[in-house]
Amino acid sequence: MSERVVLAYSGGLDTSVAIPYLAEQTGGEVIAVAVDVGQGGEDLETIRKRALACGAAEAVVVDAREEFAADFCVPAMQANALYMDRYPLLSALSRPLIVKHLVAAAEQFGGTTVSHGCTGKGNDQVRFEAGLSALNPDLKVIAPARDFAWTRDKAIAFAEDKGLPIDVSAKSPYSIDQNLWGRAVETGYLEDIWNAPEEDVYDYTADPSAQREPDEVVITFASGVPVALDGRSLTPYQIIEELNRRAGAQGVGRIDMVEDRLVGIKSREIYEAPAAIALITAHMELENVTVERDLARFKRSVDQRWGELVYDGLWFSPLKEALDAFIADAQKHVSGDVRMTLHGGRAVVTGRRSDASLYSYDLATYDTGDAFDQSLAKGFVELWSLPSKIAAKRDREA
Amino acid sequence: MSERVVLAYSGGLDTSVAIPYLAEQTGGEVIAVAVDVGQGGEDLETIRKRALACGAAEAVVVDAREEFAADFCVPAMQANALYMDRYPLLSALSRPLIVKHLVAAAEQFGGTTVSHGCTGKGNDQVRFEAGLSALNPDLKVIAPARDFAWTRDKAIAFAEDKGLPIDVSAKSPYSIDQNLWGRAVETGYLEDIWNAPEEDVYDYTADPSAQREPDEVVITFASGVPVALDGRSLTPYQIIEELNRRAGAQGVGRIDMVEDRLVGIKSREIYEAPAAIALITAHMELENVTVERDLARFKRSVDQRWGELVYDGLWFSPLKEALDAFIADAQKHVSGDVRMTLHGGRAVVTGRRSDASLYSYDLATYDTGDAFDQSLAKGFVELWSLPSKIAAKRDREA
Amino acid sequence: MSERVVLAYSGGLDTSVAIPYLAEQTGGEVIAVAVDVGQGGEDLETIRKRALACGAAEAVVVDAREEFAADFCVPAMQANALYMDRYPLLSALSRPLIVKHLVAAAEQFGGTTVSHGCTGKGNDQVRFEAGLSALNPDLKVIAPARDFAWTRDKAIAFAEDKGLPIDVSAKSPYSIDQNLWGRAVETGYLEDIWNAPEEDVYDYTADPSAQREPDEVVITFASGVPVALDGRSLTPYQIIEELNRRAGAQGVGRIDMVEDRLVGIKSREIYEAPAAIALITAHMELENVTVERDLARFKRSVDQRWGELVYDGLWFSPLKEALDAFIADAQKHVSGDVRMTLHGGRAVVTGRRSDASLYSYDLATYDTGDAFDQSLAKGFVELWSLPSKIAAKRDREA
Amino acid sequence: MSERVVLAYSGGLDTSVAIPYLAEQTGGEVIAVAVDVGQGGEDLETIRKRALACGAAEAVVVDAREEFAADFCVPAMQANALYMDRYPLLSALSRPLIVKHLVAAAEQFGGTTVSHGCTGKGNDQVRFEAGLSALNPDLKVIAPARDFAWTRDKAIAFAEDKGLPIDVSAKSPYSIDQNLWGRAVETGYLEDIWNAPEEDVYDYTADPSAQREPDEVVITFASGVPVALDGRSLTPYQIIEELNRRAGAQGVGRIDMVEDRLVGIKSREIYEAPAAIALITAHMELENVTVERDLARFKRSVDQRWGELVYDGLWFSPLKEALDAFIADAQKHVSGDVRMTLHGGRAVVTGRRSDASLYSYDLATYDTGDAFDQSLAKGFVELWSLPSKIAAKRDREA
Repeated sequence: MSERVVLAYSGGLDTSVAIPYLAEQTGGEVIAVAVDVGQGGEDLETIRKRALACGAAEAVVVDAREEFAADFCVPAMQANALYMDRYPLLSALSRPLIVKHLVAAAEQFGGTTVSHGCTGKGNDQVRFEAGLSALNPDLKVIAPARDFAWTRDKAIAFAEDKGLPIDVSAKSPYSIDQNLWGRAVETGYLEDIWNAPEEDVYDYTADPSAQREPDEVVITFASGVPVALDGRSLTPYQIIEELNRRAGAQGVGRIDMVEDRLVGIKSREIYEAPAAIALITAHMELENVTVERDLARFKRSVDQRWGELVYDGLWFSPLKEALDAFIADAQKHVSGDVRMTLHGGRAVVTGRRSDASLYSYDLATYDTGDAFDQSLAKGFVELWSLPSKIAAKRDREA
Repeated sequence: MSERVVLAYSGGLDTSVAIPYLAEQTGGEVIAVAVDVGQGGEDLETIRKRALACGAAEAVVVDAREEFAADFCVPAMQANALYMDRYPLLSALSRPLIVKHLVAAAEQFGGTTVSHGCTGKGNDQVRFEAGLSALNPDLKVIAPARDFAWTRDKAIAFAEDKGLPIDVSAKSPYSIDQNLWGRAVETGYLEDIWNAPEEDVYDYTADPSAQREPDEVVITFASGVPVALDGRSLTPYQIIEELNRRAGAQGVGRIDMVEDRLVGIKSREIYEAPAAIALITAHMELENVTVERDLARFKRSVDQRWGELVYDGLWFSPLKEALDAFIADAQKHVSGDVRMTLHGGRAVVTGRRSDASLYSYDLATYDTGDAFDQSLAKGFVELWSLPSKIAAKRDREA
Repeated sequence: MSERVVLAYSGGLDTSVAIPYLAEQTGGEVIAVAVDVGQGGEDLETIRKRALACGAAEAVVVDAREEFAADFCVPAMQANALYMDRYPLLSALSRPLIVKHLVAAAEQFGGTTVSHGCTGKGNDQVRFEAGLSALNPDLKVIAPARDFAWTRDKAIAFAEDKGLPIDVSAKSPYSIDQNLWGRAVETGYLEDIWNAPEEDVYDYTADPSAQREPDEVVITFASGVPVALDGRSLTPYQIIEELNRRAGAQGVGRIDMVEDRLVGIKSREIYEAPAAIALITAHMELENVTVERDLARFKRSVDQRWGELVYDGLWFSPLKEALDAFIADAQKHVSGDVRMTLHGGRAVVTGRRSDASLYSYDLATYDTGDAFDQSLAKGFVELWSLPSKIAAKRDREA
Repeated sequence: MSERVVLAYSGGLDTSVAIPYLAEQTGGEVIAVAVDVGQGGEDLETIRKRALACGAAEAVVVDAREEFAADFCVPAMQANALYMDRYPLLSALSRPLIVKHLVAAAEQFGGTTVSHGCTGKGNDQVRFEAGLSALNPDLKVIAPARDFAWTRDKAIAFAEDKGLPIDVSAKSPYSIDQNLWGRAVETGYLEDIWNAPEEDVYDYTADPSAQREPDEVVITFASGVPVALDGRSLTPYQIIEELNRRAGAQGVGRIDMVEDRLVGIKSREIYEAPAAIALITAHMELENVTVERDLARFKRSVDQRWGELVYDGLWFSPLKEALDAFIADAQKHVSGDVRMTLHGGRAVVTGRRSDASLYSYDLATYDTGDAFDQSLAKGFVELWSLPSKIAAKRDREA
């Protein structure tokens, strides 16, 4: 039987040209798989037809937006996942979902090899290949850009040579990846890290410094899952989609950073993630109200490791699963409402209320009604600082 | 010899009344010590005279602003210290400095007891007493508010009864602590955590939503220490002071959170910390550029522990010292310039440059001149994901 | 209604005398609760009768040995719980179980107060009271030794005065706590930490240096639970009991250490824990074989925190629960056999086999049949060390 | 100018044959560098002459035993470095030292390439190459076993073909690496992890179960450095050497484990490390006595990361340096004597004394003279458990 190559297909120039190119290289057939993770752009049917027009033996399109929101974005929010305290893992979240559908297509159509368009110096190759090796270790991988030094120029020449039905003229000056959870931009002039990003880099967010009225939103969570906006019950996908619109309109979620890639180099990245930043901000504050102190402190190290692991491509890994079990337990009581003001590039919590609150007015207040017995404090303070005190005495004597 | 009580003196009603009250309670003499940590308000000489007028045997005033900036605020910035990812440790930083001067005064004037005005349900009692027990374990402590249930109402009655030269009429609706690194507010109506703060809560920051021109600043760091603004060499104190003014004017640094106190309760706090937030933001990004990945990842856990420890009152502790040694080593190469835009409540990094940069254009670029050998990636990816792959195979077989 | 005091009752002098003493102090009735956690000694019926003879209104005895083994010792083993890398948490494990039965008795018999015999300088008071406040925060606590400075001498005088049916003559020179998971000894001459323990300190273990034949045992685990010895299916209690006997006969599990108590002081402790040490040793090695590397590395930090938390009295805490969820997930594949030699004070693993093994002969071997593709290594090594290499270049230039 | 290859030379068959082989492959000259890290065997002059006889252009021999002890073994002991709680990092410590001398030789003799004998599936290739890229990133690397699939059989044929002056007959059934800090053995029949090691695997240690008299030793430390045995001042090298002899004679330090290699596979390893285990055991207990609790707790995570990092080949890395700074600070007070009994395969601490002790008889004792104020405990316990209590109340209501 001939080779069947399952291709992660976007509908764009590079992966369209890859269809005949991979067929030629492998002597086999290509199965194009396009997954909608909320990246917008053309509709799936148009994409499907283009794949077939370019010579794909099969073309599969999957609307995975609800799945992406519920099973990838929400867990990231529960982990307050901000790699290097900044980056909400946009691409790092979509890759394992795409891998899942690639593997499903390989199983359905007898695929033996999987192909993706990533280069050899980025993180996404790792996310694809680590995911594939976890979900089906028997699949082979071809990454033309990395393994055959396949470039955009070669792709254009190939497309023209073969007369493929693709528009080769349009070219963004930027390298972009976008999905429901946000948008990532890398670009020529920003590779000089002293250069500031210009306004045309952005698409999900309006200029935060423009004058406009603030927007106020109440987000309701149930056990760590966002379930309503302003009292309207919605799916996670609907909530993220609406918050992208509303927080994006207020310029919320722009990020400009130098980041550590897994392959060992630093790169400069621009991100936009309005819903992600708004949701993580709200979720962190609801955790402040509903999660016990020691659990909250340790959860920070769990959250950090979770973010590194997913950034590093290990979504489908035993450690990720065990961290998920910890986080799931910690979310049991993360229920309630958070009120936020979205304005001027900021998503600011202004109120929180919860039936599972650990905040106690009676213990916190300095007014009459104070239920806290201050006489306990003296003993606490003395024993709390006793080890330091004994060490200080030793040091003075030495 | 009679008891001599060293009192942490602010010049305000409570601690002024404490002077004769402590003398009465202990049958001894009171030595008032006022430390300027940038809290503003009256000048030190006025405060000194008031202490004596209230009956203090000695009155010491210390301008510790440069010391506070260099030895307390800068280390906090180097640790990117944000307790619960939000609070820059304002009061937690000033307490150990004040303790240092209280102990010095006790040694100079034969003090045997130290007194502070903290209650029994806050963090500051711990910071005072843990610091005292580390610096001079032989000193006794009296905290009238906690130990004698001494209240503001009692203080006013006592002041009127004794005819003390203090204005007892002024009363802020808020409980406030402020210093060079920021300002903390607790207040009646904010004890309902659903209530939003109103504009009159703030003093260090202007309304971020007001229209104004952005301000751009370049901060220069040398080995983790801020040394210049816009090319002008300044001391840390001068830099913080200027950034409080400039970032404050743009509404930068407002924080509204529910936080976990060391004594075991949750409280709601409003903070303003314009310079702290601007400096920490700039410093974190300069670390992104100059600190190696593995060091950066581990430093996050060191930073978190540092922040918890200082919040918890253990500034003078063996662990704090060892964490400082780690951080000092990590700061060696944190040198260079960070350009920020201060505007609309946000301090946004727009550029960074450093002779110690680990960002390499040649390795990062996708343009010609790319020095990264992509052929290395395949082997890296395979071995990187090998443990997960072996585990996945095992799981499929099980 | 009069006060009813639920007393943690051991049957010994101190707690027997406490029955009439507490009745006198509180003007109420005493409910004695004795829990068998494998400490040996008198049978429960004898203990029950003595409580009644001393004046208890009710006397409850509970055989909790199977529960202790399954719900407390096994989780500790799964966390490889060795506080300070040495101490297997003997008393720290039994306290929460006893608390559970005290609370149940309080609910059954209308108890309003709980009493325990711990002093104010040890860890056990915390374990009792933290457990009580978690399981029933409405219960009050009396600790006569701490709160009323109640001493052994006073107890003897009181017993003689009241003519209580207790033998007051026997007095061990040692302070001892023992249960199924091990035995703890503190004693006069060992408070000089230069003094070596003498042989009469020990009871669970024979002299390891005596000549005897080695004992070999195969322990079978299923998902982290010990389920068989030498092929015989047994309950956790039976396994621990048999291993205490067999490993104890070989002198396994003696520990002599200086340890950090929660109340801030260091103390010197002697422990014997033959089964605990044998089981933890076997379990760790089975984890080495069946747990993926990254999970194993992170689990060490989870295990350490688990041990500290339980040592510190926080068995019933939100963080403990979330750590348990992590550990439970990590135990899924910890199944298989471990063969050990018990001899001369050592429990040494000599073989391991598992259907869930991640050890692959084909990948590990240097013989023919090697399935590892060495050509992948070069790329891995280069990218693995790239961040350090870039930093080293920077440092050489600086 | 022709290529000059600096070869890590052991004097054995493989690396002797590599001399003419590398000359042939590269068309250049070979500089053989042999480093004595306490591995025993032939004297350095014999090794030097053999290198020249095999065709080396230069042959450098270095007695690095004192350097290895002081700069590599002692820091490992200060970090209590036991990878996976078992393995004292024998080879992982010697590699960076050898690298240092290879780089020095390259600089002295104009070497442009470095060659080592490691395979592509072990850890040592990483340790060599990560070290080289940190110390001199311009050096190229050749690993014949990995890069040219060079095997022992080929080496023997080549040696016979060229008439090299090497004995090709001797062949251990085991793959062995040994140095001052211990000895590592991998071997055919042990690749079945159910097989127990047989006695002939061992060389540094006598059978622990043989009858003999115990040996008692007092080890003196000054700021974390071992400085004397039984009162005799010695260098770290002398101490390790003597402890290897004395603890080895008692069978101390045998380890049999399945371990996680950096390259992603699990392997089975047998180690012997008598001095390492004795010193780490003594050092840990002296830390128990002299290091403050919070510092000790955090140091465990630093120690674990230090061990992983060095195991993973990153001795010369920025994170390693910063961890070293932490550890150095933590060692300041680790001074005093530890008395141990070496016997029957066990190194057991029986006494400790230190001028820097934090153990206080007055605070710890239950005898008269007790300086601990038990009345402080009640408040401590209540506030310590308050967060759990509040959470428990919330949970009961939910």
